[in-house]
Amino acid sequence: MSEDLTARFRKLWDEIAPVGRDARSGGYLRYAFTEPELTLRDWFREQAERRGMPVTADGNGNLFARWGDPAAGDAVLTGSHFDSVPHGGAYDGPLGIVSAFLAVDELRAAGAAPVRPLVVAAFAEEEGARFGVPCLGSRLLTGALDPGRAAGLRDADGVSLAKALGDRPAGARPDLIAGWSAFVELHVEQGRALVERAAPVAVASAIWPHGRWRFDFTGEGNHAGTTRMADRRDPMLTYAFTVLAANKEARLRGAHATVGRVAVESNATNAIPARVTGWLDARAAEPETLTGLVEAVRAKAAERARRDGTEVALTEESATPLVAFDGGLADRLAALLAAPVLPTGAGHDAGVLAGHLPTAMLFVRNPTGVSHAPGEAATDADCAAGVAALARVLGDLTRA
Amino acid sequence: MSEDLTARFRKLWDEIAPVGRDARSGGYLRYAFTEPELTLRDWFREQAERRGMPVTADGNGNLFARWGDPAAGDAVLTGSHFDSVPHGGAYDGPLGIVSAFLAVDELRAAGAAPVRPLVVAAFAEEEGARFGVPCLGSRLLTGALDPGRAAGLRDADGVSLAKALGDRPAGARPDLIAGWSAFVELHVEQGRALVERAAPVAVASAIWPHGRWRFDFTGEGNHAGTTRMADRRDPMLTYAFTVLAANKEARLRGAHATVGRVAVESNATNAIPARVTGWLDARAAEPETLTGLVEAVRAKAAERARRDGTEVALTEESATPLVAFDGGLADRLAALLAAPVLPTGAGHDAGVLAGHLPTAMLFVRNPTGVSHAPGEAATDADCAAGVAALARVLGDLTRA
Repeated sequence: MSEDLTARFRKLWDEIAPVGRDARSGGYLRYAFTEPELTLRDWFREQAERRGMPVTADGNGNLFARWGDPAAGDAVLTGSHFDSVPHGGAYDGPLGIVSAFLAVDELRAAGAAPVRPLVVAAFAEEEGARFGVPCLGSRLLTGALDPGRAAGLRDADGVSLAKALGDRPAGARPDLIAGWSAFVELHVEQGRALVERAAPVAVASAIWPHGRWRFDFTGEGNHAGTTRMADRRDPMLTYAFTVLAANKEARLRGAHATVGRVAVESNATNAIPARVTGWLDARAAEPETLTGLVEAVRAKAAERARRDGTEVALTEESATPLVAFDGGLADRLAALLAAPVLPTGAGHDAGVLAGHLPTAMLFVRNPTGVSHAPGEAATDADCAAGVAALARVLGDLTRA
Repeated sequence: MSEDLTARFRKLWDEIAPVGRDARSGGYLRYAFTEPELTLRDWFREQAERRGMPVTADGNGNLFARWGDPAAGDAVLTGSHFDSVPHGGAYDGPLGIVSAFLAVDELRAAGAAPVRPLVVAAFAEEEGARFGVPCLGSRLLTGALDPGRAAGLRDADGVSLAKALGDRPAGARPDLIAGWSAFVELHVEQGRALVERAAPVAVASAIWPHGRWRFDFTGEGNHAGTTRMADRRDPMLTYAFTVLAANKEARLRGAHATVGRVAVESNATNAIPARVTGWLDARAAEPETLTGLVEAVRAKAAERARRDGTEVALTEESATPLVAFDGGLADRLAALLAAPVLPTGAGHDAGVLAGHLPTAMLFVRNPTGVSHAPGEAATDADCAAGVAALARVLGDLTRA
């Protein structure tokens, strides 16, 4: 990669690197519509303005910056999201937006005059870390999520999405989608497949079916010191058993299951909890494996609840079917870039948009393979390789 | 019990019943030195003033209201605490203070002229719900806790005890303790022994040895979707196993073990946690049983951590040895009241003061047996019986 492009990447990257960084963990706290994420949105508008790209908001929290005549139609969309998981990495999301602006610069420097417009997108609440529904912005935009239901989603402090947005979300925008001919999302890799293949960039083939299930375990809150063991109805026990069961059932099936989030009421050292809520994140290569996994965990939780004298209720909070990205587009990109083609277990806005227009993803090598944690990484040279690949792909798609 | 006393109890009780009550859970959020608890402290000063009882602060957050000549010495101390666990019951703590003021009224109405002064106490942070150390106020007062260490204790928002107190705590006050000849704490029962015995009031014999141990489980934060099961170092698994092991080991020993509090980093649905912290509350009738229990849980956690590729660190946050209350005083009170004598698994400020002066406790029947939860209960008639018993005991102790 040219040293110039690597330096240009680092320069632009440095503008956003400090925003929302937690000094203690080294991770990021960039929740949708909170101060750090709003700062990044301002930065998005500034970058667009600097490049003479008018910005449109879709009423669902998503922003779009356009290069080219809107009347031309068949625009090529690129971009990603700014929001992070709690103490997440620097690259997951922002790399796709920074790379998009740099790709515009590359195309302009090369004297490209695109036939089709190019649109850089910043999607809202992709991680679902604030309101609990991942890909919230893209789901609203495509009509996959009812705006009435979304308006009432609340964060941990009880603030509704409508309040955070400043208005009820607009919901489906087929008028916008009709103007796009393809979407390409560049993203840091969230595993070590590119390290093993010694390649800086890959093209995605598919996203595993996946979802989030909330387990509410209820028992009887009581005094930890004075309540006899035999008299207890302790939901923490049912929760703990379910965590271990989910792990075991996923291993048996070659699937992925994680309980990474828990809420306890009252969460006092000297009190048996009245209620424990655990969130199961489950993913598998085939939909039937995923269904079987969740059902097995549910059955084991219910059986243990009977022994503990507790109750368990299961709620599907989100479910994303298998997404096979447009095969023709993936093949075209892989050939253009001479890049490997990989599936992924992670959900993305690209997975939501893939139901509506030809969609592809590019992955940039991550030396640690870590993601959703401060250890997430990418070298400046690989990021520059990602920008060059994205510019090549966007140049190709906007030409013909 | 006289209907009058029952009505007087209800009237005074109604003054504090709404303070810090959470409408949704029906429980109380009365953390030390937060607004609801400060309101109750103001109410304490008001009640003392109404009765012409001067109030002294000991510089550790504890308040004392005196009836009688301070020069007389050998004062009899009574009272309890205002602070609650998260979503705790109405009675745990405040019942002992309200009953103390009503007992003063009873003694005065009966024309008693105590030889010894009577002091009503409100102790600070008995539950340890804000700064993590139970009986914080009485431990500071008696010198069981170093004021320098205590000053730096921080709540969940990072506020130090020194900041909350407005000053560094004063620490041991032997000058105050030297003026007291006995302490009697009235408390709601935290089990159903009095229901089984059909008695409204009991005298305490002993407090089980008990303590709090923090287990810090560390692994590697990573993406829940893309990290292969075999590549994970997930501390939630080690935590879950330890919760179940603590339960099993306590049952085997006839002891009590509870993990009712957990903190997860990052606590995101789609992230394998980097760190899970669980707090073990453990209690047993004999010290060697308690030691054996904690050691067994530690060993099982360490063994599981090796399998999970995680690490576990154990920290004793507090430990309270067996407290056998003054046998002579307990016998005297039980004879005076014709009340049963019971041990308890719960810690109290009385357990801390018992090392410094003859100390006793009275328990008031709790029909649900629930404590540290909104279901905690006591009938007005039983509370009045508690006031009458306390008045009788205090009258007896202040006379001779």
